[in-house]
Amino acid sequence: MTQKTQILNLNRFDPDSAHAAPELLRARMRHAGASSVLFYAEPVEMVRGEGVWLTSAEGRRYLDVYNNVPSVGHCHPKVAEAIAKQSATLTTHTRYLNRVVETYAERLLATFPAPLSNLVMTCSGTEANDLAMRIAEAGTGGRGFIVTEAAYHGNSAAVNEISPSAWKSRGPAAHVRLVPAPKAPGFDAAVAAAAQSLDAAGVGVAALIVDSIFSSDGIFADPAGFLAPAVAAVRAAGGLFIADEVQPGFGRTGTGLWGFARHGVVPDIVTMGKPMGNGYPMAGMVTRPDLLAQFCEETGYFNTFGGNPVAAAAGLAVLDVIRDEGLVENAREVGAYFRAGLAELAARAPVMGEVRGAGLFIGLDFIDPERGTPDAAQAGRTINALKQKGILIGAAGLYGYTLKIRPPLPFSRDNVDFFLQVLAEVMAG
Amino acid sequence: MTQKTQILNLNRFDPDSAHAAPELLRARMRHAGASSVLFYAEPVEMVRGEGVWLTSAEGRRYLDVYNNVPSVGHCHPKVAEAIAKQSATLTTHTRYLNRVVETYAERLLATFPAPLSNLVMTCSGTEANDLAMRIAEAGTGGRGFIVTEAAYHGNSAAVNEISPSAWKSRGPAAHVRLVPAPKAPGFDAAVAAAAQSLDAAGVGVAALIVDSIFSSDGIFADPAGFLAPAVAAVRAAGGLFIADEVQPGFGRTGTGLWGFARHGVVPDIVTMGKPMGNGYPMAGMVTRPDLLAQFCEETGYFNTFGGNPVAAAAGLAVLDVIRDEGLVENAREVGAYFRAGLAELAARAPVMGEVRGAGLFIGLDFIDPERGTPDAAQAGRTINALKQKGILIGAAGLYGYTLKIRPPLPFSRDNVDFFLQVLAEVMAG
Repeated sequence: MTQKTQILNLNRFDPDSAHAAPELLRARMRHAGASSVLFYAEPVEMVRGEGVWLTSAEGRRYLDVYNNVPSVGHCHPKVAEAIAKQSATLTTHTRYLNRVVETYAERLLATFPAPLSNLVMTCSGTEANDLAMRIAEAGTGGRGFIVTEAAYHGNSAAVNEISPSAWKSRGPAAHVRLVPAPKAPGFDAAVAAAAQSLDAAGVGVAALIVDSIFSSDGIFADPAGFLAPAVAAVRAAGGLFIADEVQPGFGRTGTGLWGFARHGVVPDIVTMGKPMGNGYPMAGMVTRPDLLAQFCEETGYFNTFGGNPVAAAAGLAVLDVIRDEGLVENAREVGAYFRAGLAELAARAPVMGEVRGAGLFIGLDFIDPERGTPDAAQAGRTINALKQKGILIGAAGLYGYTLKIRPPLPFSRDNVDFFLQVLAEVMAG
Repeated sequence: MTQKTQILNLNRFDPDSAHAAPELLRARMRHAGASSVLFYAEPVEMVRGEGVWLTSAEGRRYLDVYNNVPSVGHCHPKVAEAIAKQSATLTTHTRYLNRVVETYAERLLATFPAPLSNLVMTCSGTEANDLAMRIAEAGTGGRGFIVTEAAYHGNSAAVNEISPSAWKSRGPAAHVRLVPAPKAPGFDAAVAAAAQSLDAAGVGVAALIVDSIFSSDGIFADPAGFLAPAVAAVRAAGGLFIADEVQPGFGRTGTGLWGFARHGVVPDIVTMGKPMGNGYPMAGMVTRPDLLAQFCEETGYFNTFGGNPVAAAAGLAVLDVIRDEGLVENAREVGAYFRAGLAELAARAPVMGEVRGAGLFIGLDFIDPERGTPDAAQAGRTINALKQKGILIGAAGLYGYTLKIRPPLPFSRDNVDFFLQVLAEVMAG
């Protein structure tokens, strides 16, 4: 087992472990085989979700500080109702016109800056990023992509090539260049060098693609604006800028709906997914009409489930709830309160390092107190200990030492207080 | 405009046409841009679906003889109810255990022959085929794929490479070989030659992948068993056989759930999608544990929405309805009645050629009566004329001259009679 695999496995159920396997777990191992990835040394069976809470089969309630798909709250009644109603009315594809679908598309596009006026709806963030890559290739003639070293953009063959965090032992393909996460100044210089290297290799530059809050790299939000010179660098080399908003999008960063806006840049392509339908499988890609037209000249693109009326109804309900419940503001305010509380705790706990983030997307490093180096084992122990005390959370980053804090957006100050109290208990041993 | 593009456009709304564009159509053109593909010279706005019927905004009812996603009937109340109930209870991912999900996986796998005992759930047939390709590459060391000349397997970068029907002017990439649709004996010889050519090129053979009823190629079902020697040929060359059941699967061919079974073969990988959730976005890939394990050794695969509890609940309801309403038997019986009626009509209409198919997946060729050559224009006129008379249908095949008949599975003999009567009227002019 490589070191990377060991780190990846810290927070996973080990199928070879000696734990007695209940019947459901045996069923999972049997049908999912090698593809099964279960959280926790002792996996949890979930049966119900409501707001920021998940309930297990034993009737235990867990505070959800991890799941960003049910972004407006687990099983939000307005979204569930919209899905139920439209599922009983009409589910079809975009080769017929439909008022719910066309309305949703127009309303979603109204949240983007002017040149970004075309939307293609897909089923997953993977499909959105896969399409974005092809549009970038068609639009530039380049085939090269620049990504951060622990990025994750999805699971298709093409998107896997730009998702180093899903690789186990192999390195990047010839058309991919990795740049370090923006921990320190110099991100733009690294991007410029990567573009030059792609050009020198005769591959050309299709795009720089980044998650605008660098979720898998360990969450890097500040200083707001640091992306702008990197975007300028890739454009100077003839490449496009793709903002992957699958994780930060739909209000999580606390300033408008989109993470890229904090950096004062307008991407050429934006992709989105996870929270778009609060759990209904839907995603999308937004771009300029000229780029989409260039791609469509050579390739017919149709997505059977993408943009079906139920997806549109779910998406409309999500936009309504974000607005009606003030979730962007809540993400900003509760997120700031959360970071302040974490920083206070970290000041007293030597194994806790930097607290980073924007809105309700927060990273907290665990470090070896003497050497200041990443301590993924401490992060893994903390995650399992928090679960024992009824809190769900995960890890991120190249070395898996960053606690990934991204609860559903209706997270309250009370929820924060509870989390901080339990975390303090866990740290006290 | 190439000839191929012209053929593709026969049954499409032309954005440059002079038709007055209502407000909804203008919205669509504005937001979907070049990616919009609308059926019919005058697109239809749909508002409601029930059983085998769709209702337009003008209140007109259309008999659906085309849509294979709402396979157990549009908005089937049992599926809609399952979706509604689970959406209000829990929507999460497969990193927790869940009884609905594990139950569905086991029940679905029970419909496959023994070596096929692992399932990976995805959001779309595209994702399932994309994963199947990577598993075939990892399992064989080969990179080459053999596909039929008008195949369609999906829309990702990798799957587009094996989907000639989505290409506009370009030809196959170096790792792809096209074989003619199995219109006549010799399919196995063509596959063997393609495999040899891939080997000679140093690419190696990863897999032969076919839609087991050749939907996009024009629907080729008989003689049952013709696939077996082709599968043997690709295996002799070290490649795998992937059965793409996205279109024929879940009972449509009238003998069991899977189209490959008619041919007496056991695939190495099976992919499925469209009718799996009756419109809920879900799909899957089934394979042998050894193949999945080999792939997972190098690559972490996780699908956020794949296998969520709502998908599983929808999938379970679909399996229940197929069983409880005898839809496989209905597909077989009504399908045979349908083909007999079409053959009778074709015997009297010189522009109608061969009738082919299995169960409720039927192809009907339109030909130039004097030369016997494909007549896509006639197919396009017929499709638009049928729509004027309240019937929805489409075309398939390399030259677009085959009427693609694949209604929801509860299609009745009365529905067939109505269709045949209207088709006869249209043909009589």
